[in-house]
Amino acid sequence: MVAEKRQRVVIESVTPEIDGGRFPIKRVEREEVTVEADIFADGHDLLCCRLLYRRAEEPEWAEAPMTPLANDRWRGRFRVAGLGSYLYTVTGWIDRFGSWRRDLQKRIAAGQDVAMELLIGADLVAAAGNRAAGAAGRRLLKKAALLRSALLLEERLSAALEGELAELMELWQERAFATVRERPLEVVVDRERARFSTWYELFPRSCTSDPERHGAFRDCEARLPEIAAMGFDVLYFPPIHPIGTTHRKGKNNATAAFPEDVGCPWAIGSGEGGHKAIHPALGTLEDFRRLLRKAQEQGIEIALDLAFQCSPDHPYVQERPEWFRRRPDGSVQYAENPPKKYEDIFPLHFETDAWRELWEELKSVVLFWIGQGIRIFRVDNPHTKPFRFWEWLIQEIRRDFPEVLFLAEAFTRPRVMHHLAKLGFTQSYTYFAWRNTKAELESYFLELTRSAGREYLRPNLWPNTPDILTEYLQIGGRPAFMARLVLAATLGANYGIYGPAFELCENLPIRPGSEEYLDSEKYQIRCRDLTAAHSLRPFIARVNRIRRENRALRHDWNLNFHPIDNEQLLCYSKRTEDCDEVILVIVNLDPHHRHAGWLELPLAELGLEEGSPYQMHDLLSEARFLWNGPRNYVELDPRVMPAHIFRLRRKLLTERDFDYYL
Amino acid sequence: MVAEKRQRVVIESVTPEIDGGRFPIKRVEREEVTVEADIFADGHDLLCCRLLYRRAEEPEWAEAPMTPLANDRWRGRFRVAGLGSYLYTVTGWIDRFGSWRRDLQKRIAAGQDVAMELLIGADLVAAAGNRAAGAAGRRLLKKAALLRSALLLEERLSAALEGELAELMELWQERAFATVRERPLEVVVDRERARFSTWYELFPRSCTSDPERHGAFRDCEARLPEIAAMGFDVLYFPPIHPIGTTHRKGKNNATAAFPEDVGCPWAIGSGEGGHKAIHPALGTLEDFRRLLRKAQEQGIEIALDLAFQCSPDHPYVQERPEWFRRRPDGSVQYAENPPKKYEDIFPLHFETDAWRELWEELKSVVLFWIGQGIRIFRVDNPHTKPFRFWEWLIQEIRRDFPEVLFLAEAFTRPRVMHHLAKLGFTQSYTYFAWRNTKAELESYFLELTRSAGREYLRPNLWPNTPDILTEYLQIGGRPAFMARLVLAATLGANYGIYGPAFELCENLPIRPGSEEYLDSEKYQIRCRDLTAAHSLRPFIARVNRIRRENRALRHDWNLNFHPIDNEQLLCYSKRTEDCDEVILVIVNLDPHHRHAGWLELPLAELGLEEGSPYQMHDLLSEARFLWNGPRNYVELDPRVMPAHIFRLRRKLLTERDFDYYL
Repeated sequence: MVAEKRQRVVIESVTPEIDGGRFPIKRVEREEVTVEADIFADGHDLLCCRLLYRRAEEPEWAEAPMTPLANDRWRGRFRVAGLGSYLYTVTGWIDRFGSWRRDLQKRIAAGQDVAMELLIGADLVAAAGNRAAGAAGRRLLKKAALLRSALLLEERLSAALEGELAELMELWQERAFATVRERPLEVVVDRERARFSTWYELFPRSCTSDPERHGAFRDCEARLPEIAAMGFDVLYFPPIHPIGTTHRKGKNNATAAFPEDVGCPWAIGSGEGGHKAIHPALGTLEDFRRLLRKAQEQGIEIALDLAFQCSPDHPYVQERPEWFRRRPDGSVQYAENPPKKYEDIFPLHFETDAWRELWEELKSVVLFWIGQGIRIFRVDNPHTKPFRFWEWLIQEIRRDFPEVLFLAEAFTRPRVMHHLAKLGFTQSYTYFAWRNTKAELESYFLELTRSAGREYLRPNLWPNTPDILTEYLQIGGRPAFMARLVLAATLGANYGIYGPAFELCENLPIRPGSEEYLDSEKYQIRCRDLTAAHSLRPFIARVNRIRRENRALRHDWNLNFHPIDNEQLLCYSKRTEDCDEVILVIVNLDPHHRHAGWLELPLAELGLEEGSPYQMHDLLSEARFLWNGPRNYVELDPRVMPAHIFRLRRKLLTERDFDYYL
Repeated sequence: MVAEKRQRVVIESVTPEIDGGRFPIKRVEREEVTVEADIFADGHDLLCCRLLYRRAEEPEWAEAPMTPLANDRWRGRFRVAGLGSYLYTVTGWIDRFGSWRRDLQKRIAAGQDVAMELLIGADLVAAAGNRAAGAAGRRLLKKAALLRSALLLEERLSAALEGELAELMELWQERAFATVRERPLEVVVDRERARFSTWYELFPRSCTSDPERHGAFRDCEARLPEIAAMGFDVLYFPPIHPIGTTHRKGKNNATAAFPEDVGCPWAIGSGEGGHKAIHPALGTLEDFRRLLRKAQEQGIEIALDLAFQCSPDHPYVQERPEWFRRRPDGSVQYAENPPKKYEDIFPLHFETDAWRELWEELKSVVLFWIGQGIRIFRVDNPHTKPFRFWEWLIQEIRRDFPEVLFLAEAFTRPRVMHHLAKLGFTQSYTYFAWRNTKAELESYFLELTRSAGREYLRPNLWPNTPDILTEYLQIGGRPAFMARLVLAATLGANYGIYGPAFELCENLPIRPGSEEYLDSEKYQIRCRDLTAAHSLRPFIARVNRIRRENRALRHDWNLNFHPIDNEQLLCYSKRTEDCDEVILVIVNLDPHHRHAGWLELPLAELGLEEGSPYQMHDLLSEARFLWNGPRNYVELDPRVMPAHIFRLRRKLLTERDFDYYL
């Protein structure tokens, strides 16, 4: 029995904390972290609790105050400034002076003799005086002497209870037996785009007006202004590398390709190079860097695809045979999901005895593109590669490049999806595309925005991708695309579309029951008339402008659903913490029929007073409605507009507004 | 990058697990521990998972199988045999042969050529053969050769898929890259009385028929048969030590005592000794040991009170002045809760610089009474002594005496109560006494029996104690005592009563609004006529016999509440896992009025079939009712009997039963 055991304070159930601190939580620059803990001690003494935090590389803790809530729960807050890692933990100790002061007041109220108590207090103050340095110490010792002096009891009592003494004692408390929660917890701090981003997916080879001509980076440049005007800030390209020819797939995933077929960009690698090379038809590395610069001028970042797999023609296959699994006949094992075979793809053998070299090489791929200026990667099927590889890779990269973001394309089981997010992926694709009914959307978004998983999993909502043309979009026509766009753009701060197909409401599947596109760009070049009259481009631009102009839409956690008495209408709001900005969205989920209903708003939560009318300004249509009280009527015809995105206006209509109506 | 990182399996969210494994869970001998975990890997391979467990002092893990539930959750079970500590953890690895076998079946079903697959399987089998020892190894190598042989494909396929090969491969799997959850979790195993006990509290000095004569252990002996006949198996005495005279409290907690006042047993210590001494009026140590033997003969264990505090006359005060806090005038600091003062009690100063000596001395007190044969301690106000002291003390004691039980009397805030239970207390007093309405009882008992806290906090339910005469008992009369007894005895496997006062339905408080008894035994000797006609003794004996005779009542977790359409009626069942024994309790919570209602039973859960009548046998009244279907009528008049304790009888009425009615 040697170790000191006189720490009386217990700290339990710290939140946020992921798996006992095994994984970090996530924040973006300048966000706050609200930390809570159960903190208590034996007996009746008051406690003093502090939140400790620091940048991981700094040696000294900073302190933030913690205040008691109910039931021994305490709360404190700190703000993360720069990129990288922060640590935080909690400490608590017995507040001897505070307890003494509280008891003194009780004794006085009960009319007890407190002369002896003043001497006990004087001892506490003198001890603090001896701990304190310089002037503070001298002041405390002087106050201790005052408490012990021959002055009138009333004067000594008022000196004992004065606020200045309490403040000084707070600074110079006895913390010898303070309890500190042992394992500090970590926050990974990303740049703001990790939390708020608007993605547009594009096959660069389809940037062409001639189906016989392979689009190139130079053609993409011409598209940048349109994409920027629509309000997108991330432009994501499927793999841009040379494509294998062995077992190349033809149009519509045909097993055999014709000579003119361009192949699938995910069958990476040919005699022209592998993961660090650019498909010659797209241009040169110099063209690529030029495109990055041009995009940057338009406020657009380019995201590349990390698809760690090889075509049979990838240089690795010859150069590093030990990175592939062999079959008994000596051939390389192709990808399969029995009974399906993908003979145009060789998976990398992550468990090879040469795993260290393989993993290092893959890291060098990421560093190569970082070297070209890329800072966002969309990771293809991360759930089919080992978890520990991703954890290692992301940590290695972010140690030197904390601004790099990784989006996990893991359409898989929930535990796996969550684990990848815990390991370090910045954003995650979700099940959003398949959540269409009101009940599905409400329960899924409550899970995403309220459960502990929100601390590490940042959803990125995609209504479509080149792999996913949902039944809802197939059968709902243009109103379905509009509704899903509004949902993605306002339910989530991060969302994206597989752009050209979405703009033009492309909804033909390869066959009934399939979510694959007919004539999918995955296997062929697609020329489109992006200026078609039915294009959603103006609508998309408007929705994205609403996102940019309204801070409330840049966050996920501020989502609240509200009751509305129609199962086809979904109603929710997002607001800034100060209720300065309140956005209310109503979406008609039925793309075929007009629906109306009465919704019910929590007035007080939205900063509204019962009995005071307020104006709802529809940012989509510019229409304005005067509402009153919690219950209000809405009506949405999907053929006109399947949604309202209201901004609450508290002030009266201005003259200009009247002009608008007259 | 040196460490092996090829473990592909992830293990998360193991249950039960308390605070990441910081604290053990609790079981009694021969109970099962059901362990669950989220276990998954990248890709589509099958996994193999095992629950590992062992006695803490044994070096080798035993293994139990785990089976997949839904959503990557796995479950396994093991049984704890002896007292002490067990450890458990979880391991998982890729089941290569199982995955290969599953895929082979898919390929065959799809009509694919599987000749090459057979060779891949043969490699797996040969590798296992090389790992396996002796005969198993030879058999595996032979089977591998068969798969590679020139036999007909069908024969080789049937050899590949046969059950025997799968079983052998299961035994000799490749576990080189198995993941093991790092920190093993602990189970503390108590004897069965930790989970099922029936307590009777008695002031031995009141075992007298003459209020002028101090009852003694010899008098207690005479009471043992009655207490045993009532069905109690733990007899708990308030402190039996010499009582201080300085500032002794008089009758009804009067500040000044008369010379004849006997004092409060919790003011421990006088010139006649301290915590290791016996009050001379109670008898000698020899008398005490004799009482223990006599009690044991009646199936009763005696529990002592650990009240770690001193009267001003305790020998420690003179001999170990450093174990007490001093006031500025040199006097010892008495106990207080400002503005209340308890000048007859000196708290021990657990934070003294001499804490090691103090803690060791207190441990020696426990060991002293263990030396006399005591194995159960009721600990007085543990929440006013440091947590770390209790954790240390209980671990020290249980290392050599794992059969010792500690009951925590911590009527305090929920976090503190829970923390003491985590630290090692075997049982805990609860808020039961103050939970009286249907809503209160249902929500409190769901919390006690369903939340994670049940893994470490074993409730002990007391309708009264010498400190607690609840308002409900004060105003409800005899029916209130009967209802509370049934609730305590059937909601909880552990319960107790402050016996003589409860038997006689004593319900006079010292003053209105107080929960203190008038003429409390804490300050005086009380003689009672325990044979009074209104005594609950026969009723208590009957209820305790029902507990003994029905296994379902010896557990806490098997409690289920059922709907009943009257707010004053509470309805719940307990049943054995096999539904062999089903107990249904209905209590009228209103001690004043007759109440009736329709209850609704989940027939299937209780092992009943819709449409088959069943018999409910009231073990309190011996009445029998023929019920049918889920909805049935009950009616309880508190002046007759405020509760039913039904045992479900599935078989038809016997002739004897008919005789009973005819």
